[in-house]
Amino acid sequence: MGKKDGGGKGGYQLKVPKGTKDWNGSDMIIREKIFSTISEVFKRHGGVAIDTPVFELREILAGKYGEDSKLIYDLADQGGEICSLRYDLTVPFARFLAMNPEITSIKRYHIAKVYRRDQPAMTKGRMREFYQCDFDIAGQNDPMLPDAEILRIACEIFDRLGWKGKYTIKLNHRKILDGIFKVCGVPEDKIRTISSAVDKLDKSPWTEVRREMTEEKGLDPAVADKIGEYVVRKGGEDLLKSLQADAVLTGNESAKQGLADMELLFDYLTAFDVLDRISFDMSLARGLDYYTGVIYEIITEASAPSAAPVADSKPKKSKKAKDDDDRSDDPSVGVGSIAAGGRYDELVGMFSGRGVPCVGISFGVERIFSITKSRIEAEASTKLRTTDTDVYIIAMPGSGLLKERMDIAKRLWDVGVRAEFLWKVKPKFDKQFAAAEKGGVPWSLMLGESELANGQLKIKELGLPAGHPEKDGVLIQLKDLESEVQKRVKGTSSSTKAKDVENVVESMEKTNLAAEPKEKELA
Amino acid sequence: MGKKDGGGKGGYQLKVPKGTKDWNGSDMIIREKIFSTISEVFKRHGGVAIDTPVFELREILAGKYGEDSKLIYDLADQGGEICSLRYDLTVPFARFLAMNPEITSIKRYHIAKVYRRDQPAMTKGRMREFYQCDFDIAGQNDPMLPDAEILRIACEIFDRLGWKGKYTIKLNHRKILDGIFKVCGVPEDKIRTISSAVDKLDKSPWTEVRREMTEEKGLDPAVADKIGEYVVRKGGEDLLKSLQADAVLTGNESAKQGLADMELLFDYLTAFDVLDRISFDMSLARGLDYYTGVIYEIITEASAPSAAPVADSKPKKSKKAKDDDDRSDDPSVGVGSIAAGGRYDELVGMFSGRGVPCVGISFGVERIFSITKSRIEAEASTKLRTTDTDVYIIAMPGSGLLKERMDIAKRLWDVGVRAEFLWKVKPKFDKQFAAAEKGGVPWSLMLGESELANGQLKIKELGLPAGHPEKDGVLIQLKDLESEVQKRVKGTSSSTKAKDVENVVESMEKTNLAAEPKEKELA
Repeated sequence: MGKKDGGGKGGYQLKVPKGTKDWNGSDMIIREKIFSTISEVFKRHGGVAIDTPVFELREILAGKYGEDSKLIYDLADQGGEICSLRYDLTVPFARFLAMNPEITSIKRYHIAKVYRRDQPAMTKGRMREFYQCDFDIAGQNDPMLPDAEILRIACEIFDRLGWKGKYTIKLNHRKILDGIFKVCGVPEDKIRTISSAVDKLDKSPWTEVRREMTEEKGLDPAVADKIGEYVVRKGGEDLLKSLQADAVLTGNESAKQGLADMELLFDYLTAFDVLDRISFDMSLARGLDYYTGVIYEIITEASAPSAAPVADSKPKKSKKAKDDDDRSDDPSVGVGSIAAGGRYDELVGMFSGRGVPCVGISFGVERIFSITKSRIEAEASTKLRTTDTDVYIIAMPGSGLLKERMDIAKRLWDVGVRAEFLWKVKPKFDKQFAAAEKGGVPWSLMLGESELANGQLKIKELGLPAGHPEKDGVLIQLKDLESEVQKRVKGTSSSTKAKDVENVVESMEKTNLAAEPKEKELA
Repeated sequence: MGKKDGGGKGGYQLKVPKGTKDWNGSDMIIREKIFSTISEVFKRHGGVAIDTPVFELREILAGKYGEDSKLIYDLADQGGEICSLRYDLTVPFARFLAMNPEITSIKRYHIAKVYRRDQPAMTKGRMREFYQCDFDIAGQNDPMLPDAEILRIACEIFDRLGWKGKYTIKLNHRKILDGIFKVCGVPEDKIRTISSAVDKLDKSPWTEVRREMTEEKGLDPAVADKIGEYVVRKGGEDLLKSLQADAVLTGNESAKQGLADMELLFDYLTAFDVLDRISFDMSLARGLDYYTGVIYEIITEASAPSAAPVADSKPKKSKKAKDDDDRSDDPSVGVGSIAAGGRYDELVGMFSGRGVPCVGISFGVERIFSITKSRIEAEASTKLRTTDTDVYIIAMPGSGLLKERMDIAKRLWDVGVRAEFLWKVKPKFDKQFAAAEKGGVPWSLMLGESELANGQLKIKELGLPAGHPEKDGVLIQLKDLESEVQKRVKGTSSSTKAKDVENVVESMEKTNLAAEPKEKELA
């Protein structure tokens, strides 16, 4: 017999490929709700949807991802073009812009699966096939205005998902980092590799990062120590002011530009009322090569194994974070951020002569899903429906009334009412009832021969308490079927199911419980 | 410079892989509308959504598609499991059922991309990457009831898309076909290959199919002639009655069972009021091995190069059909059906000891898209919006008012109004106006320094005719911004764009123009 991940009949394992999963039941409902919440905010800001192929010519992806290129899935060479599965949605977007020069300005969003041959950590929501939700702004605009709106979008999404006050946007600027490396004396050819080392500060203590710089990457220890004084700093406008007062740093043109950008961005984020979610974090470097300006990552308390979201002290590896590591599928795999992005002004130019400045953000749905799910499961009162069915059509005991049930279903479908009946010629009464209850269907239509002979049938709301005056249902005229049913299901016809999820998300918004998931769900 | 399908900067072609395309602009809007129309009907019948990985272990797909297996895309062997891209959504569904024995009964739908290394014919909507929308019913039910509901679902979808009266469901039964082959004297080991030859009758005349049977496949010409008398027949209940009166045929147990099924199905389709869309077509055989009962394909007049949808005479290759062939990307590729499916009771059992009877249908979105798009383009009055933006915030000439525009945008976003403004510190008045008009935004908010000093701003509906009393806009109080805007955009806030498409689809429903697209769009 087939069983989950069991042996198949053909002598091979009956399973899905490593790092992938099937989605069904209430998981699908929750995921759809997350998608609709995110795309609603994208549209609120004028976003338009695009869709690109799941695979690209391999040359398009080559040279865009640095060390991570080894994680790209290749298609087999079966004759014809050489292709690979997309690794993210950003490079395909840049390729799209390069191919369509008539598009000079666009706010596009794209919700789709991407593929990475990484070590999966399923319990952390780290998959080989996973969804990204991207929003990107391309075009010539005045400095930092699109950048500020992207961060505002992120805040609207996480607030709407019920995480208000429980997430932090880590923010930095590539030009400031580059300036720091320069004034500290890092040789030009070591800047990217030293930057990668700095980026590990969310997982490793400074002593470890310093060792990597000096021992593995041959950096002068005195230079490393100078870097260390900068990159462990975190803060807000205070940190910005202190850096602007640093004459050595502002003597570097790149750093000076980056700091001016940050000042403008802070000003705009204040106008958008989201500055309180920002942590200017000088250890944030981001792995990908293509960023050229502001960079950001959004984390929650659950973003183990790093320290608490807003740390004013030097990063340290806490006891708790270490424990989380030990329990993970692979201790080297951090849970990482729940959203991330930055400015990349030169990526489109890698494909064509036309440079198009871009800034964007990518939301990791699987991670957001795990936390939302644990929240919903904690609400014992909420059982999510997986169908939208309004009415179940039931034959009274002893009578099959198949044609009558079919006719009633047909009439309801004709007016858009969601209706089901059991596909049996003579169904048992309790089987029909069980099917309606299993689906959480709110209404039933009960057909009896004597009632039908009088041109009547009974409509009954399921789950009414004993003693309710309509507990046994209400007789209606068969000729008025459509209007009688529509009148009653009106409250549910916009989808009871959707309302269920809506209610959960709304109660999450109010209580902020979403950001306090149970520890075991997040390990 | 980059240009469409032009040379890339890196010395390689800047293009998408053969047989794939980017979707953007109004194409995305139309496609989304088709998806929502289809999934709305799926939900009306109690459908639940599932999602499976885009690739499967290669062994799962092996031996399921007959000759078409050569079209499967393989992933490269990069160490680890050997995988292939899914070819359809049916085999992954059967694999899912085999892995989840607790699911004994399900109505599932799945809207996702599938992959076939076929010769693309882009103008016909034949792609290597394309969407399928599948609805399948699994479980033990009384005969032909789920089968009838699947066909009812197909009719509701095409009626809703505006094709009423312009599509035909070709219907046949594998058991009847097998019975015919038996009584005509086809040897057991030739049944599947002769069945494949019969299936070509929608593209080729009988003389050609007969030649394939006798010359290529070595069938006795007398046997072929007997088959020919059956398989060219088309009709409705009349044909069913005439076959039931055929003592030779009904002497075969398989044929007898198939005919009994068809009689019951005709009865149920009458109850569901869709029998008039059915053509009992004895030449329909379907290529895939796994069908075991009723099989069907839905065609339109546009399903060249076959003859007209409901043909009562023997199939013939018309002059027009031949011309279509000549103009196609590849004459051997027919446009084929717009939806197809059937009963497959033994597929799940190929994966596990548990047999689960299934019946389903798959809608080809690209094909439906082409016809819908040509319809919408023909409606000159309709210009589809690609965003949902309600309000564009504009600074009056001479004033930048950036912070004021940002503050108003923030206040509107906070209450869910979709608002945009130009990302310039001092934007030109006409540039702002042009951006609003380009996006078809229905309302603008006009900010002037003197009005703001009085705590006022102007709201203006765009596109009002000259002489309209509110052509120049209406002054509102800044403190009442949210309520004043919400009051006005109410009619549009449920998405003007969505309404546009809705209107088009509705006018299609009324006029049935959708089924009479321009010839050039369909070639």
